[in-house]
Formats: sequence, C-alpha cells, structure tokens
Amino acid sequence: MNSVIDTILSHRSIRQFTEQPIEKQQLDAILQSGIAASSSSLLQVVSVIRVTDPKKRQALAKYAGNQPYVESAAEFLVFCIDYQRHYQMNPQVKPEFAELTLIGAADAGIMAQNCLLAAESLGLGGVYIGGLRNCAKEVDELLELPPYTAVLFGMCLGHPAQQPDLKPRLPADVIVHENSYQPFQAQQISDYDAKMHAYYANRSSNQKQSTWSQEVTTKLSGESRPHIMGYLNGKGLNKK
Amino acid sequence: MNSVIDTILSHRSIRQFTEQPIEKQQLDAILQSGIAASSSSLLQVVSVIRVTDPKKRQALAKYAGNQPYVESAAEFLVFCIDYQRHYQMNPQVKPEFAELTLIGAADAGIMAQNCLLAAESLGLGGVYIGGLRNCAKEVDELLELPPYTAVLFGMCLGHPAQQPDLKPRLPADVIVHENSYQPFQAQQISDYDAKMHAYYANRSSNQKQSTWSQEVTTKLSGESRPHIMGYLNGKGLNKK
Repeated sequence: MNSVIDTILSHRSIRQFTEQPIEKQQLDAILQSGIAASSSSLLQVVSVIRVTDPKKRQALAKYAGNQPYVESAAEFLVFCIDYQRHYQMNPQVKPEFAELTLIGAADAGIMAQNCLLAAESLGLGGVYIGGLRNCAKEVDELLELPPYTAVLFGMCLGHPAQQPDLKPRLPADVIVHENSYQPFQAQQISDYDAKMHAYYANRSSNQKQSTWSQEVTTKLSGESRPHIMGYLNGKGLNKK
Repeated sequence: MNSVIDTILSHRSIRQFTEQPIEKQQLDAILQSGIAASSSSLLQVVSVIRVTDPKKRQALAKYAGNQPYVESAAEFLVFCIDYQRHYQMNPQVKPEFAELTLIGAADAGIMAQNCLLAAESLGLGGVYIGGLRNCAKEVDELLELPPYTAVLFGMCLGHPAQQPDLKPRLPADVIVHENSYQPFQAQQISDYDAKMHAYYANRSSNQKQSTWSQEVTTKLSGESRPHIMGYLNGKGLNKK
C-alpha cells in the first residue's frame, strides 16, 4: 500500500547478524525515531541503555537465557521504565502506583517499535529480548539502574544474516472485536492451529510438531517469572 | 532519511478531525499492521475493540475525562490486555503474574504504534487516549470485557483537521545511556525546560506559561489513578 505499511507487514524477528556494524548516522536515526514517539502526558518515562561493553553483552546474553545474538548483534539496546528522572527533579513524586508501571511498559513498547521499524526501513533487522526479565535483578545491577527505574526488555539490531519465513498471526476476526468483547469460536483457533502446525513443521530452522494453542497454553500453565512482582516492588514500582 | 523515518519523525497527536470516514481498505491495513507486530513468545495477548456504536462513543468520551474527539473521530480503537483467550483454551493457565501484565502492556504499545504509523503513512492522524483508565471499570463494563482481559488505552483515528506544532522531546543524551545508567545533569533539564517554555507559550492553541519539569512533577506529585491496581486485580491480573 505504501513503504511504511510494507515495512510493517514484512516484519520478521532477526536473530542472526553479519559482523557489519550499524553506521552512527543510522543508529542516531533509530534512536531519534524512538524519542519522537507518543509519550503519555509527555512524562517521557523510558530510558534506553545502549550496551557496547563486550563483557556486559556476554553477561546479558547469559542472563537472557543463553541467547548468543544478544552478544553478537551490532547493537543491543535495553529499554527501561524510568521514574528516577522525575524523582531526581522532585522527591515528592510517587512512582509506586501500578498505573505508572502500566504507562512505562506501554510507552516503552511504543518507543521501541519506532526504533525497530526505523531499523527495518534501513535494511537492518532485530528482535525483542524479553528474556532479560529472567534475571531482572542481575541485569539491573549490571546496568546500575537506580531506584524507580526497572529493566523491561532488550532489542538486538544489526545487518540480517537470515531471512526467516513470515510467522502467521491470529486472524483479524479473533483480535478485533466490534463494540463489545466476543469470545472466539473454536473453529477459528483450529484453523489457526492448522496453519501454525504447517509453519512449525516446514520453517527453515527449528522445525517441530506443534500448534499455537499447545505452545501458548503449555507456556502459560506454569508460573510466569514469579520474581517480577518482587523485582518491581523492590524498585519502588507497582506497589499499589 | 526515508519515508518510514520521515513518517515517524513527523508525528503529532491529532485531536481534531474532519467528518470524512476512513475507507474500509485503509482501516483493514491499519489493523493488519497492528497484528503483524512482534508478540512476546507469540502469546498474542492483545485484543482491539473497535467502537462504532455512537452511544458507546459518547460514554467513552465522558469516561476519558470529556475528550470530545473520542466521540467524533472517524474510528476509535480500544487496546486491551487479553488473557481470556488463553484461559478459554485451557483453564489451567495462570494469568495473575505481574510479568504477564507487563507483557500485555508492552505488546499493546508495540501493536498500537504499528497501527498509528500505518494510519499516519496514509495521511491520517490520531492520538492515544490513556484517559480511559480514569474510569477503567466503567469502560470495562461498557465493552463487556471478560475476566483476564483489561482495558489499557484507546486510539482516535481520522482525517486531520489541524496541524499542531512538533512537540520537543528530551534530548537523546538524557534518554540514551551507555553501558550503565547516568543521572541527568541539571543543565540538560534547564535547557529542555527553556525549549518547552517557548513551545507552551507560542504553540497554536492551549498556550500557557510552564515548563516540562513543572508539568510532570506536578502531575506525579499526586496519586496516579490509584484505582488501577484494584481494577487489574479484580480482572485476575497483576496479583503476584
């Protein structure tokens, strides 16, 4: 339809990169793209830690659950919820409300997606690294995050050395509702499961026999990073 | 640099719209753009409620703190964290972890930003409406959201009837840190405050005498939607 929508619809997560660095001018454009994003009440509650220290990269790759591209990607950015700035300006601010953690997480997503799309528009590729939250406290200490600032996710960026298949998504009639919430019909999920089964069985790497509903219900049947509430609370966030 | 980055850097929030509707083909492209976004572990935990019922629009405009463009915009989308889908597939899933609310909020931001950029690339404009959380419970009931599904924010979309000035953002050297968190220097904020003072005093509407640090520290010195924790907990989310 146009190059913006084409870029958006062509998204694949890239986990293999060439050794070519990202030019400074390109990196600046990527970061400025993030900064230009909408910000709730212009609070600007997101900080980005650009990690260039090879030892820190190595540690982060391990903390993320042994994801080697965290170490090898040309750039690695860590997106953090940041109310330390506001606290530093005025110790009367009260960052402890769940509302403010919601704002931080949503605004970090908005900002980071601008960065990723800018990178993709330049022929680069990337992937979000939520796995940093496996070891939120260790990552936090490594990056010397102050109180009221919490690690949220990372992003690898670089020149792609792979071209993965497009991963099918749930159909629009499951995601989009009109005027009120509509529970899905079993057939919609069966149809999508069939599509995902074919995708998993035939994709160019990491082939497996599975369906979407199997994958996600298995994942969500266990505890989901149960240390995160304690981590956020320890940073003075998401307390009430 | 290219049309994607140009679109990103030209972002202004649009709150005045003409009466022209958004063509179905364009709306479909906007929604497909959202659906194409990265999704943490492919969980796909975001639902979008498209509100076309004029009475519901009127109610939402009021709930959002009397924002008339919620009623008048060509389209109004409500982005929700949605684990009801996964619970419907398997009642063994445990959506109550703070981790999963973080994922929902970040992924909703990522998805919604794809929608907004797609719209902006088509010459449309829009604005995020976090104000829906003023009356989260009322919005929730109006849209008949089930357990494990929570309202996060709305988005107005339409043909712009205004061209606001670009709103200055914090400079990159405050937002972006290298290898470890660096507290800002007072001068950086003073410089930005001077820029924002000039912006507030001279912008085309809603002029005022203020600075960024005044605005945000005042806003954060009060309680920030203290009902949100109870709302999320009531939906079975963000409990532990």
